[in-house]
Amino acid sequence: MSTSRGPGRRPGSPDTRAAILDSARGLFAERGLKGTTIRAVASEAGVDPALVHHYFGAKDDLFLAALEIKVDPRQVMAPVIAAGVEAAGENLMRVVLRVWDDPEIRLSLLAIVRGVFDREGQRMVRDGFLGIVLGPVGRGLGLDRADERMVFVASQVFGLIMLRYVLEVEPLASMPADLVISTYAPTLQGYFTDDLPS
Amino acid sequence: MSTSRGPGRRPGSPDTRAAILDSARGLFAERGLKGTTIRAVASEAGVDPALVHHYFGAKDDLFLAALEIKVDPRQVMAPVIAAGVEAAGENLMRVVLRVWDDPEIRLSLLAIVRGVFDREGQRMVRDGFLGIVLGPVGRGLGLDRADERMVFVASQVFGLIMLRYVLEVEPLASMPADLVISTYAPTLQGYFTDDLPS
Repeated sequence: MSTSRGPGRRPGSPDTRAAILDSARGLFAERGLKGTTIRAVASEAGVDPALVHHYFGAKDDLFLAALEIKVDPRQVMAPVIAAGVEAAGENLMRVVLRVWDDPEIRLSLLAIVRGVFDREGQRMVRDGFLGIVLGPVGRGLGLDRADERMVFVASQVFGLIMLRYVLEVEPLASMPADLVISTYAPTLQGYFTDDLPS
Repeated sequence: MSTSRGPGRRPGSPDTRAAILDSARGLFAERGLKGTTIRAVASEAGVDPALVHHYFGAKDDLFLAALEIKVDPRQVMAPVIAAGVEAAGENLMRVVLRVWDDPEIRLSLLAIVRGVFDREGQRMVRDGFLGIVLGPVGRGLGLDRADERMVFVASQVFGLIMLRYVLEVEPLASMPADLVISTYAPTLQGYFTDDLPS
């Protein structure tokens, strides 16, 4: 165990977990996912890096824990990747609706989306939604120009989320999930598999 | 002229215009476009309603003046409507990019978009972008289920704006306008003219 931890803080106590999450939240917001190391989080929290790994696993896991999202995006996205690119538009829409139509998960996600107008919050949105949630889908599906395609996908999903869940614009806000899915699935499918202009 | 105007405020002075705009901004934010009357704006500003009409025209004009957008959306949308529904996806995309790629106009529009997370700002976004900008396009093009289609269009345009101009996500942020237009035009065209699921 490190000797650099704060006075009176016992490793393994809820205090230690909270201190690590606090430190992680601050550093991720300030430096982004790439600019933050487990070592820096540990140092700021006054604990040994091994303890951070022990509690939270890899850096992506720590990032997701720091965001306090009530769902693991990699877990919900795994079936979308496994089902292959031909139905990816509809499958991704199903996941988006299932996650965002759940009031508790939605609340945790909206807290992140609200950061979109300040610089640190923007980093969380980019690193979170694009880096950890959508990026791996594009690569997992083996798409050509995957990053570009996933940004197009993200732009439609993000706009839908804003109008349905934030602005609550009708008729979109009260539209049954199945109808939303069948409206937007072809758009996403196009971004996944159509030839891109160049 | 009204006798109810504030002490020392002369009708026709820059003060009077500013007082009307202040009053309009407050009332539109609080009550929305529909809930606000020219009469209420005049009364709050301490001037005669006829003076409000004289300076700003109809209520929609006053709303746009209050938003201080550096462009008249009805003017830029008129050619999109005139060119007809078959090319509406591409034509609308051209307008979106021309307006948002202009730094001065973009700044004035971003000020409105930033309101999206507070209740009064949301009303301005809905009444402005959907009510005054996009609503008339759908009706002008003679679309069936026009309001629904325009909300789908808005969801893609809004998401694109957020990713390109607010989050500045690459490669979208530095993509040449023509490439952005040809990427998104088919999506908008689909929302304009494809059969909608029901």
